[in-house]
Amino acid sequence: MFNVTLPGTGGMLPLPSRFLTGLFVTHNGSALLIDCGEGMQIALAKWGCKLAHLDIILITHIHADHTAGLPGLLLSAGNYGKTSPLDIYCPEGAGDSLKKLMCICPEIPFEVRICELSVSGGSHIMWNDIEINSLPLMHRVNCLGYSLCEKRLPVFDPKKADKLGIPPKMRKLLHSGGTAEIGGKIYTQSDVVSEYRRPLKITYVTDTLYFDGVAEFAKKSDLFICEGMYGDDEYIPKMAEKRHMVFSQAARLAAAADVGELWLTHYSPALPEPAEYEEFVRGIFENTVVSADGQKREVR
Amino acid sequence: MFNVTLPGTGGMLPLPSRFLTGLFVTHNGSALLIDCGEGMQIALAKWGCKLAHLDIILITHIHADHTAGLPGLLLSAGNYGKTSPLDIYCPEGAGDSLKKLMCICPEIPFEVRICELSVSGGSHIMWNDIEINSLPLMHRVNCLGYSLCEKRLPVFDPKKADKLGIPPKMRKLLHSGGTAEIGGKIYTQSDVVSEYRRPLKITYVTDTLYFDGVAEFAKKSDLFICEGMYGDDEYIPKMAEKRHMVFSQAARLAAAADVGELWLTHYSPALPEPAEYEEFVRGIFENTVVSADGQKREVR
Repeated sequence: MFNVTLPGTGGMLPLPSRFLTGLFVTHNGSALLIDCGEGMQIALAKWGCKLAHLDIILITHIHADHTAGLPGLLLSAGNYGKTSPLDIYCPEGAGDSLKKLMCICPEIPFEVRICELSVSGGSHIMWNDIEINSLPLMHRVNCLGYSLCEKRLPVFDPKKADKLGIPPKMRKLLHSGGTAEIGGKIYTQSDVVSEYRRPLKITYVTDTLYFDGVAEFAKKSDLFICEGMYGDDEYIPKMAEKRHMVFSQAARLAAAADVGELWLTHYSPALPEPAEYEEFVRGIFENTVVSADGQKREVR
Repeated sequence: MFNVTLPGTGGMLPLPSRFLTGLFVTHNGSALLIDCGEGMQIALAKWGCKLAHLDIILITHIHADHTAGLPGLLLSAGNYGKTSPLDIYCPEGAGDSLKKLMCICPEIPFEVRICELSVSGGSHIMWNDIEINSLPLMHRVNCLGYSLCEKRLPVFDPKKADKLGIPPKMRKLLHSGGTAEIGGKIYTQSDVVSEYRRPLKITYVTDTLYFDGVAEFAKKSDLFICEGMYGDDEYIPKMAEKRHMVFSQAARLAAAADVGELWLTHYSPALPEPAEYEEFVRGIFENTVVSADGQKREVR
C-alpha cells in the first residue's frame, strides 16, 4: 500500500495560491519524493508530509521548478532528525548541477548519494521492495518519467495446500516463492495459490511532449499523475513547441494506458482555475481528477 | 522616499505561516531586494512587490535561508518582463556559490552581474542616487549588514535668495550644489538654503552576534531592520554560540543607535508567536515593531 500526497500542482513558477508540482509517497515507514521545486519543503510541511524518513528523491529534470527547493529541503530534513543516507536519482547529465546547488547546504547531517539514470533507455532501481522504472521523456532537457511498482504475492489457498498434504511450516516458504521437496516431490508457489494479483502501480510523467510510449509506460497504473499545462486544446501547438501537454492529451494517454485514475498536475501560472475543465476532460477519460494542492489518497 | 516591504520574517526554514526574511525597497521606480531565501518570489507576489524593475540584490551571506530562492526569482523576473541588467552584491567568497546556484537558470533574459564586497572593511556602492554602505557582521560565514542612504537637498530659502538678488534662473543650480558668479561675487548652496536635512536611512542587519559596531552603523536610521531569533533572554547564550541575537539585543542596539523605528525579523521556526514579546521589547526601545510577513511602510 502506498500513501500518496500531491504537495503542489503548479508548473514554471510557484504562486501564493499554488505550490510547484511533485509527489510524496510513503510505503512501510519510508518516504519517497519526486521533484523538489522552490517551496517544496513549505508545501510538505503544510500537508503533513514528514521529512525524517525521506529515503529517496527522484528528479525528473534539472529545470528550476523541479529542483530549486533541494538545498532547503535537505537542510530541513536534517533539522527534522534525518540521519540515514538519502539517494537522489536524476537523468544523465543532471548530477553535476544538483551537486552545484548543494553548495549552499554543505553541512547536512546525512549522506547524500546522487545517481544518474540513462536517458537512452529505461532504468530499473529498487526502493525497499518497490521496483522503480524510468522512461526517457521528450522535453527540452534530459527528462525522465517514473513508475513505482509494488509486487504483491498471489492469494494463498489453504484448500490446495491441504489437498496436497503440505505441512503448515512449509506453506509460508512456498507462498513467498520458494520451493520444497516433500516425499520426493517438488512443490512451488503455484501449488498453494489460487489467484495472481497484478502489482500496485503509480506512474508520474512530467514534463514532456505527447508521445504514445507514455501510455505503454503507464499501462494499468492504479494512479497516473500526468502534466497538463492548460485545459483548452487551443494551446496544443504552443505547448508542443515548449514540449509540454494539455489536459486532453494526458486524458488520452490515461485512456490508452487503461489506468485506474488520472491526476492532472503542472498547471501553467496563467491558468487560474484548472477545475473549470474537469467536465471536458472527463469526457475523454472519466476517472480524471483535476488535482489541487494537498490532494491525498491511499493506493491499495 | 523609500517604499519598504518585509516579504517574510522567518529564519532558518520557511514555514507555511512564515516566509523567510528579506527586504524589498522601491525608490523612484527602481527596486532593490536584500536576501533571497527559498520562497522569496512567492512572498513578493503575495505582497504585491513587482519584479520587472528589480535592479539590485544585496545578499547578506551565502546560507540557504538567504540565497536558495535566487534561481527561481531570476527566472520569474524574466517572466515578468525584466530585460535590463541586474546587479547582485554579496560578501567576499560568496560569488562562486551564487554562480553555481544559477546553473539551473541558464536562460535568463537579462544580464546578471555579481560583485563581491570586502568583509575586512565597509564598502560603498551606489543604487541610482542612493548610497549603500556595508558592514562586516559576526556570523559563522562572511556576512554583511547594509544601509541605504538617500541624501536630501537642504531646504531652499527664497527670502535669502531675494535678499542677495540672485536671479530666478540661477536658484535651482545653487540649490542643487552648483556655484554661480553674479556681479563678480561667487555664490554657493549655503547662500540659498536655510536648513540642512539629514539623509533618509534604512539599515538591515542579519545574521550576527551582538556587537556595538552595529549601533554605530545603524546610527540615526529612520528604519532599522534587525534580527532577533527569540523573544526570551534565556536564549542569549545559545544564540551567541550560533552567532545570532535575541529581541532585547536588537532593541538595545536600536536605542544606542537612536533610530526612528526598529523592525524585528528573522524569527526561529521554534518561536510561533513573536508578538507575545512586544511589550517586553518596547520596554527597552519604545518604537519597536515585532514585524509580521508583508509589513510595509513609506520612509519619507
